[in-house]
Parts: sequence; structure tokens; C-alpha cells
Amino acid sequence: MNASIGLAVIGAGYWGPNLVRNAMATEAIDVRWLCDLDVDRAREVLGRYSTISATDSYDAVLDDPAVQAVAIATPAASHFPLAMAALDAGKHVLVEKPLTGSLDDGRKLVQAAEDRGLVLMCDHTYCYTSAVQELRRLVHTGELGQVQFIDSVRINLGLVQPDVNVLWDLAPHDLSILDYLLPPGVGAVAVAAHGADPIGHGMPCVGYLTLRLSNGAMAHVHVNWLSPIKIRTMVVGGSQRTVVWDDMNPSQRLAVYDRGVDRLAPRDLDPDDRKQMRISYRSGDMVAPALTEREALRAMMTEFASSILEHRPPATGGVAGLRVMEILEAAEESLRTGGSFVTMEDTR
Amino acid sequence: MNASIGLAVIGAGYWGPNLVRNAMATEAIDVRWLCDLDVDRAREVLGRYSTISATDSYDAVLDDPAVQAVAIATPAASHFPLAMAALDAGKHVLVEKPLTGSLDDGRKLVQAAEDRGLVLMCDHTYCYTSAVQELRRLVHTGELGQVQFIDSVRINLGLVQPDVNVLWDLAPHDLSILDYLLPPGVGAVAVAAHGADPIGHGMPCVGYLTLRLSNGAMAHVHVNWLSPIKIRTMVVGGSQRTVVWDDMNPSQRLAVYDRGVDRLAPRDLDPDDRKQMRISYRSGDMVAPALTEREALRAMMTEFASSILEHRPPATGGVAGLRVMEILEAAEESLRTGGSFVTMEDTR
Amino acid sequence: MNASIGLAVIGAGYWGPNLVRNAMATEAIDVRWLCDLDVDRAREVLGRYSTISATDSYDAVLDDPAVQAVAIATPAASHFPLAMAALDAGKHVLVEKPLTGSLDDGRKLVQAAEDRGLVLMCDHTYCYTSAVQELRRLVHTGELGQVQFIDSVRINLGLVQPDVNVLWDLAPHDLSILDYLLPPGVGAVAVAAHGADPIGHGMPCVGYLTLRLSNGAMAHVHVNWLSPIKIRTMVVGGSQRTVVWDDMNPSQRLAVYDRGVDRLAPRDLDPDDRKQMRISYRSGDMVAPALTEREALRAMMTEFASSILEHRPPATGGVAGLRVMEILEAAEESLRTGGSFVTMEDTR
Amino acid sequence: MNASIGLAVIGAGYWGPNLVRNAMATEAIDVRWLCDLDVDRAREVLGRYSTISATDSYDAVLDDPAVQAVAIATPAASHFPLAMAALDAGKHVLVEKPLTGSLDDGRKLVQAAEDRGLVLMCDHTYCYTSAVQELRRLVHTGELGQVQFIDSVRINLGLVQPDVNVLWDLAPHDLSILDYLLPPGVGAVAVAAHGADPIGHGMPCVGYLTLRLSNGAMAHVHVNWLSPIKIRTMVVGGSQRTVVWDDMNPSQRLAVYDRGVDRLAPRDLDPDDRKQMRISYRSGDMVAPALTEREALRAMMTEFASSILEHRPPATGGVAGLRVMEILEAAEESLRTGGSFVTMEDTR
Repeated sequence: MNASIGLAVIGAGYWGPNLVRNAMATEAIDVRWLCDLDVDRAREVLGRYSTISATDSYDAVLDDPAVQAVAIATPAASHFPLAMAALDAGKHVLVEKPLTGSLDDGRKLVQAAEDRGLVLMCDHTYCYTSAVQELRRLVHTGELGQVQFIDSVRINLGLVQPDVNVLWDLAPHDLSILDYLLPPGVGAVAVAAHGADPIGHGMPCVGYLTLRLSNGAMAHVHVNWLSPIKIRTMVVGGSQRTVVWDDMNPSQRLAVYDRGVDRLAPRDLDPDDRKQMRISYRSGDMVAPALTEREALRAMMTEFASSILEHRPPATGGVAGLRVMEILEAAEESLRTGGSFVTMEDTR
Repeated sequence: MNASIGLAVIGAGYWGPNLVRNAMATEAIDVRWLCDLDVDRAREVLGRYSTISATDSYDAVLDDPAVQAVAIATPAASHFPLAMAALDAGKHVLVEKPLTGSLDDGRKLVQAAEDRGLVLMCDHTYCYTSAVQELRRLVHTGELGQVQFIDSVRINLGLVQPDVNVLWDLAPHDLSILDYLLPPGVGAVAVAAHGADPIGHGMPCVGYLTLRLSNGAMAHVHVNWLSPIKIRTMVVGGSQRTVVWDDMNPSQRLAVYDRGVDRLAPRDLDPDDRKQMRISYRSGDMVAPALTEREALRAMMTEFASSILEHRPPATGGVAGLRVMEILEAAEESLRTGGSFVTMEDTR
Repeated sequence: MNASIGLAVIGAGYWGPNLVRNAMATEAIDVRWLCDLDVDRAREVLGRYSTISATDSYDAVLDDPAVQAVAIATPAASHFPLAMAALDAGKHVLVEKPLTGSLDDGRKLVQAAEDRGLVLMCDHTYCYTSAVQELRRLVHTGELGQVQFIDSVRINLGLVQPDVNVLWDLAPHDLSILDYLLPPGVGAVAVAAHGADPIGHGMPCVGYLTLRLSNGAMAHVHVNWLSPIKIRTMVVGGSQRTVVWDDMNPSQRLAVYDRGVDRLAPRDLDPDDRKQMRISYRSGDMVAPALTEREALRAMMTEFASSILEHRPPATGGVAGLRVMEILEAAEESLRTGGSFVTMEDTR
Repeated sequence: MNASIGLAVIGAGYWGPNLVRNAMATEAIDVRWLCDLDVDRAREVLGRYSTISATDSYDAVLDDPAVQAVAIATPAASHFPLAMAALDAGKHVLVEKPLTGSLDDGRKLVQAAEDRGLVLMCDHTYCYTSAVQELRRLVHTGELGQVQFIDSVRINLGLVQPDVNVLWDLAPHDLSILDYLLPPGVGAVAVAAHGADPIGHGMPCVGYLTLRLSNGAMAHVHVNWLSPIKIRTMVVGGSQRTVVWDDMNPSQRLAVYDRGVDRLAPRDLDPDDRKQMRISYRSGDMVAPALTEREALRAMMTEFASSILEHRPPATGGVAGLRVMEILEAAEESLRTGGSFVTMEDTR
């Protein structure tokens, strides 16, 4: 208990209550404040039985010496000033996606945290699910073989956002997962984006991202606010195995298929004669690994606490958030220029 | 029986036997020949108990006055000469997809059939499934409302083709379905294509098509030879209803959702202020319509016979095949030029 | 707030924390105590941020004049003394299933509550799900037609209980649902039970109940602790519609099929000639009604509060609990006597 | 071809055409006749393109020296006389389920075939599916461990039969599968049956069978003509693994779960104290074995031909059919006597 980290949660809107609840369940954290400009909303979130204090004064929070860290769940535009103020006050910072409203601000934030030796972490929640942990293990250990294609679908009847298109709203989830599971040294080198706005919203409500990866593979993301059914699937195709992650199927989230396509060496053939290339198909069993069901947000909160206590970068630090934003900004450029590929500077 | 149409099936490979079997079950058709350069293969397909004749002579088939129609299931490159010879001999022609190897040849074929008053039909089999018939009815009657987005996925561990990429191999299915179900006057105006070849095949094995439709909506097609699981889904999103077609779920192929997004008139608001646009969500029941299970190929064959007997164009005539090829050729152009949109001349 | 009901939750084991959480979220309830013989466990459940008091003294709870109601989530054997003491102290009582350890005790409890004008409610949680509410509506309005068969399956790798067989552990869920949804006047008249103990546990781990209903239909329940997969389905077959409830399929819990079998009047036939009876099959659409997702336990808690405030019997009162216990005791008798039907005195 | 077996199919009703089609595809079989009292029906089944002869004369069939075997797909009541006449004429016999209309007749048939050294085979089609073959392998090799419970469900909107109840119509499938996959020496020792007739059909339309197996386990079968949805599942629970067979899920028919319940030796405890028995739960991966898709009926027909050519008993011979009938007759007795267990003489 003497190692406990005093925490303030900033923002009592959609996500803040989840942060409060999971921080309360984290042994190493001592939740002290829930701060919102609308203090009544903060009080309502805390309810009638809580000893945690509600406030509308961010200054009071930052002035509290018992607060060592803040978790920011406010609208994106406010992430930069709030996070920068917290860093300036010597607090560790956890921030919701997207990291900031602009790439420049994001870079400043990362630099500021590094200069001060403070933790700056992005709440890339999905990375802390058992499914993504196992997916990453399969990729990083080589069991999957070389990554050949990735196809991610994230669609449902979503809350059409007034000031952000569907790519900025939903694709950060897919991109943060990609960032987390791709093997070291592999990342997006170019992105093409297509969007449609069939309901006259003024911004795309249906979006497609196509990413060229540095290893020659392609990753594809489909995000959509207009679908009446909820689909959350990601297929990661590898040279040895292919994994299908269906997040809507709790009894079998991951299915690992030992099937694939081998290109056989065209031994006696003219090597340039593509038509004679021999393809062999493997077909084997499917394994659905036993996954521990757990709340991803709790694991994320534990990682935040651990990275503070152990003075190390978190698994999904500010730099990971920057990489996601770089792809989103390139996607915006592609949308503006008719959907062709936009090359990114690789920042890794 | 006196109205029966003498038929010859050309090609005893992958698809030919299916044509033979379904033609045999069609009352108005009298199957007379199965023709293949490899006559032993033709004999093997017919088996030990058949009264149908096998031959390797296409001339003999065309010379037979009892043959009024031919069904061509040979490699794509041979479609044009075989079909043209049949038309020249005064025979009606059914041809597998794609119509021909090139758009020019396709146009010549359509013209030739028209000049001679003969039926030229494309075997767009999927259009004759109960599911697509019902989908089309929902679109054409207006029950679906305005089409807002279409997303089609057709992936599985396919036979990697030696001389054709995955778009030409699989996307004709999706494109012929789109062509069939879109409302009159709505069609593709531009297409962007992305492909990946992660196994070093020399041609894309994973492909994405994005189509801009003339009504402002977007259609998307994902085809993939490398997936260990078979997915055949199409989501057709409308302003009134959205339909999910899952062809791998025989007990519930179509699900019609009465949910959607409405854009409310921003009555008292500045009409230019997009941020204040009010979106309302409807949520209602899902209906899975009872579909008659039937073999689509039989219905297709019956349509071929009926169009001949009734001297009328078939539901999926040569012109429909041309429209599919136009999109594929534009897609090829997009692939070559980095994935940006290629505008098509609308041929409707 | 002046109408709020002071509540104490008794038992901090498996279910108690859920009661605490949902009671805290119920506007009309003011949670005052969590009582457990192991006060440290109670404190741990409440956590570091709660204003609710932990205690190991049931007397202190009953002596607190601010407590108007208790919710009992302790082992079954203690239900009777704890509930009776609460009633004697003038408190309303909510009790977990089964109501008591014996039918006699249950009857005493029901009588005592009635004599004192207090609410005695059973936490038949499933009855408060949207799915069961809709199922009941379909039955009670007659939309389903006459109930013809009911088949319930509740299996998974459960916690093998040391002192109770699988029928007493799991079947109360199915039986309380049946009790709730059957139309007025219809109930079980006889029950046959079969059990197996393939792991040498000393009591059945796999159990089957067959209930003859007073309307001639049959209800069947399969409960099983040994299945690695979790199945929670109930099929309610009616003369007009049949409903399939799959609780493991959140996106489509209820499917209402407009199909069935009609027996046609054998008009011109010898009415005794069963072989000539004409059966007609109807086949129609399936509708998956839109259900509001909500936590059943919260709705149950709200019903507890409302029944207290409105001085009326709750939807699942003590008498419903008695009916469930009567079936379980008859099932025990059937198990002991080789599996034949045991007739129950109908207590309605 | 010189080893080919001349075959006549008897009965051109529901199943006969399937036998004809699969016999035609079996290399070692030469189909010569399709015989039906209604010769026009036989002709219609054969169609316009067949060289096989239709007849209504069973005598002509039996007199044909080129016929070495008959496959009988007529109503159950006629199985005995037709099969006996064929055996008397020296023909091998394949017969649909049930073997005969009565157990006595069945025994005579088995004896007659044995006396004459002829093959008598039951068309237990399901036993020849890849799924049942793999299930049997898992049981017989011991990979499953000891069989602990079996639960089979076979329900759908069936053709309500005029002269047979649902148990005799559908349960032979489940019972023949059980017979095939249980380990040597394990079989049913008693059976209890419950049935309901909610539509006034005069015979049960919903039926339940509970079988006590000789190893202490229990098998359960649910058959139902009145369900609008089709369910075909069998769960085989073993001490090491549990297998779920879902025949409606072609992409994953078998799921093998490496989970279960272990009973630990209560080492230091009083061995009589059941309450202290320690149960441990294992939880592991699920494997869906890759199965070869094939038509079971073709494999069955091949087994018929092979058993004739190799002068050996077929995998599902007449004796297997007798065992199925014994259970059905005991079930009838249980139905008549109120649903208690009826002990069978074990005939193995």
C-alpha cells in the first residue's frame, strides 16, 4: 500500500467512469479525484456510496501533492493542454485515443514526458485483451510464420460523431492493435483511404484503409457507423498459420488454422515461368486456444501503475500513439487526393 | 417435349459436369452432346449409364441440326472463338464468366448475337439463388430505401490460378450480383483497386475493389485466395433497411434489419452548421425471410431455355457480362496506376 | 430519496457482491450493510472506497431501524432461519434460490410473510431478462398459440457442488423460468428424473427432468456440470409460433419462427383412421425481436423495491419459489424410484 | 470391371434415388435395375438419359443371374419378405433402417444370411460420415478417455409419419451411431422413454430416450418432429476430452475440448466424506480436426461392395440393426409403462 499511486481521473463522460472503476480495482492505485467541468456529472458518476472526491478544478488536482498521475478521458482537442499541464506539474499521464488533436502536439507531448522522465501512456485498450496478447505471441514467436495479409472489420450502428469522421473515430482501435502485434521492424509505409458519406453527414461514415506494410504484405481496415449488425473481426494471415479473431464470439474468440498456401520451388522448370509455379495447399486442424477472460481495461491500468513503479516505458506509450496518428494523417491526405497511396515517413 | 431445345455442353472440366447435370434436369432441354478436346474426360463425366454422346469434335456438334444451343464451360481465352462459331452456326449460346478474354471481343459477341436474333447469356449463377432474388426484390421495390453502402467479402483457400489474378477469378461473382441487384440507372462510375501478392505468385492473391456508384454510394469487394476460412457475405445498407447475406449460413442466409440512421432536418439551426446536424437512430426487429432452397444452376438453365423459347433477352445477358468486364478492366488500370480511382464510361 | 428503502445484504460470497452492486444502482434503495460471518470478506467486497458498513453481526443489522429489508445470499441451509428472523424483525426479505432447504420450511416462510404483510421475494433473476419478458409476452398474449413442447438445456463445466446434485443446483433456473412464462392455469402435474454420476461424485452431475404439464404438453430440462461448452437454450414450441432462446447469442437471443404443424380436419375420412390424418406444414419468416439489453439483476432489484413501496406481491414471490421446490422434491422421489413419473399435488 | 457386382435397387421413393445415384458412382458396382411397384415412378427417377432398366417385377430382378445384390429402400413392413426372398435367391442384401418391422423377423433375416454365407447390411448412413468416423476413432483409441455421457439431439420440422412414432422414425439414426462408436463391450442395459403428442397425432411427435450404459454412463436422445429449426448435435463427454458434433455447422462439425473434471484422490481425508471430495477442473484448447468432406452414402455403398468382394461382414451388418431394434422395442415398453427403465437382454 505504501507503493500506491495517487490518481486523478479527468473527464466524467463516456469513458471516464470505466477508468474510475478499473483504477479502483487496481491494488497499486489510490483514486483520489474525479474531475469534470460539470462537477454534478462527476458526482453522479461516483454515486452515493463513494469516498472519492469530485471537483471541477483541474488546478486543485494538479496542486494535490498526493496525486502522482492523471488519466485523461476528455474530448480529443483538450488532450494536449491537459496532458502538458500535468507533465509540467510532474504527474505521469495516461491519455485516451487519439493521443492529441494534431501530430505536432503529439510529438511535443512525447518529448516533454521524455525530458521529465515521466510516463506518458496511451489507453490502447484492445492491446490488453487476452486475444490480442495471444495474437501478438503467435506473430512474435514466429508460430504464424511471415505475416501475409491482415484484414480488420469494425462496423456497427455507431454514434455518428459531429466533428470527426469514422476513420478518426474507429480506426485508431485497429491501428493500435496492428502497431502492437506486427513484428519488430515491420510497419506501414503507405496508406490509401476511401470514404463514403451516403447519409449526407458531411464527413465519411463508411471508411476503408489499405496499408502497404514494409514486409510487402497488405493490411486492410473497414470501419462503418451505419451497419445494423456489429462485426469485430480481424484475420491475420501468415505463411504457417492464419488466425481469425472474432470478438463477437466469446466462446471462441481466436481460431488458429494450420492451413495455407506453399509456393514450391519450381525445380526443373524455367524459374521465370510463373504459370508453371507449383502451389501446394496444406489443410490441417483448427485450434481455438483457451484464453483467460479478463477485463482489458484492468490489465491496461495495471500496466500504467507498473510502468510508473518500475520506471520503464509502458507497453503502449506515447510513441505508439504517434505512429497511429501518422497513419491517420496520411489517410486524410489520401482521402483528399482521390484515394491513391500516400507514403509515410517511417518513424520507427 | 416437342418444344425441347437440343443442347451441347462444351468443356468437361470443373464446371461442365454441373451444366450437364442441371441441363438433364431441365424439362425443356434435351442434352445431346458433351464435347471436350479430351474425349475420355467427357466420357468419364458422363459415366457408364448415360445415353448422351461424348465427342471431341466441335464441328460435329455445330453440324448437328438437332443442336439449337451450346453451353460453353472452357478456359476464358477460348470463349470468344467458340461462342462466335456457335452464333455463326445459328446456335444460342450460354457462356461461363468471364464472357470473353477482352472487352473488345465481348462487344463483338454481343453485337453478333443481336444481329442474328440469338440468345447470348452469361452464367451469372449467383443471380439465380433465392437469396439474390430476394435481395433484388428488396432493392427494386424500395423496401430497402436508398442504397447507401455495399460490402462484399468472398474469401477462402482457393485454387491459386496460374494465369489470372484473384480479381479476375473471384470478383466477377460479386460484380455480377451487384449488376443484378442495383436499381435501374445506378451503376459504377469509378473503381479503385488494391492488390497484394504476399506469396510471390506474380499476381495479386488478395484484392480489394472500391466502386463509386452513380447515386453517391460506395461498394466494396474483398476477394482473397489465402484465407483458411470461407467467408461469403454481402451487406447491403439502405436508408430504410439493411440486409446481411451470409451464404455460409444455410439456416439464415438473409437477415433484414429494420434499423438505420436518419438525418433529421436541423430545423431551427443554421443549415450550414454540420456540427449541429441531428442524427437519430432507429432500432427494430430483424426478419430472416423464408427462402426456397433450390439449386441456382437449375434456375439459371431454366432461364436460358425460357429466353430461347420466348424469344426474349435472358435476365443475365451478354450486356451484363460486358458491364462486369468493364469494371474489371478499370480495376486493372487502377492496379497499374497505384490504386487511385479510374473513371469508367457508363455503358448503360 | 425520502421513499428510499434501507437495505442490508447478507452474504459476501459468490452472489452477494452482485446484489450489493445492483442495489447501489437502484434509486429507491439505500444500501446500509453488507453482513458476513467473515467480516474481512465483506470488507474486501466493499473495497477501499465505499461508505457502506461491513459487519459480522446479523443482530446488529436486524436491530438497525433504518433497515427495512434484507437480501439473503447465503448457503441454502441458512435461508430459513435468516429469513424467518428478518420477518420476525419486520423486515422485507429477498432470498436467493432455492427458497429454503426443505418444502416445509418454505411453506412456513411464505405463511409468515403473509401474516406480517411483508414482501417475501425470490431472486429468480432470469425472469427479469428482456428475453424471458418477451417470451412470456408471446405466451400470455396468445401469439405463440398453445404451448406444445418446451425443451431447456443448461450445461457447462460447472462448479461441482459438494452437497447438492446438479438438479438442485441448476434446474431451479429452468423451473423458475417455466413457472414464470407458462400461461395461467398451466403447470407441471408429474415429473420424471434421470441422473448420472459418471465421475463418482456421489450425486448426479448430469440430470434430465421430464415434466408433464396440465395442458398435455411436455417440458424437458437437461442440466449438466460436465460439459466443456456452455449451452443455454430453451425452445418453446407453440401451435402458432415457436421460439428459440439462445442466451449465448447476444446478437440474437430470441428467434420467433412462424412455422409449425397443423392437423387438418380429416373431413371426408373415417375419423378414427389415424393413418389418414392430414398434416400440413407451414413455413414462414423468422423474426428476431429487438430486445433492450439490461442487467436482469437490476430489474429484479427494482421490482423488489417497487413491491415494497407499492404494498403488492412481487412478480416472483415466495409462492413461485415453493412451486419450484415442489417439482424438485418430486424429481428427487423419481430419481429414488427408478425414473418413472411422480405426480405432484398441484398447489396453484 | 470383371469384379463388378450387379445390383438392383428396390424402391423408387424418398431414399431409392440416392441409392441409385451413389451406386452408379461406385466403381465395383454395376446398377442393372430400379424396381418399384409403380414403374412410372421408377422411370421418372432414372430420367431420360439412363441405360438402367426400370421394372415393377421383383421376380424378374431375382431371376436375373447378373444381379448379385439388392438394395432395399421400401416401407419398413416390406423389408422382411423382400430381403428374405433375395437371400433365398442367393443375393446379397442392403436394407434401409429399420432392419425389419419386428425383432423376430430381424433375427430370422440375420440367421438366414449367415446360413447362406451372404452379406446382410444395414444402411446406417451416418456411421460413414467423416465426423462419426473421427468420433469413433477418438473413443476407440482412448483419446477421449472413459465415456461419461452422451447427449444427442435430432429435431426439426419433420414429415409427421402416419404409421410410426417419432422414436421409430428418427432415433434409429442416433442409436446406430451410438452402436457404432461405443467401445467394445459397452452397450445399453436399460432404456426409459418419454413421449408427447401435443398435436393430437395419435402417436408421440416429441420423444426422449434415456439409456443406461453398461459402463455406468448415460446416453440421452431427443427427437422431435415439431421444431422449426433443425438441430443435429451430439455431445460425447469423456474423462479426457469431450467432443461436440454439430452436423449443421459444415465448417466445424467436430470440436474436441481438452477440458473436464477430475476427481482427485481425497488423500488425507476420510474417504467416506463425500463433501470433502476434491474436484479439479482442467481447461485447455479446443481442436477442430480437419475432416474430409465426402458423401457418406457413397462410402456406405463402397463398404457394401467391399464386404461382398472380400467375403467379410460389413461394418454395419444385420446384427447392428438388431441391436438398434432391441432398444426401440424396450423404449416402446417403457412408453407403455409410464416411462420407467426397461432392462434389455444384452445381445452382444
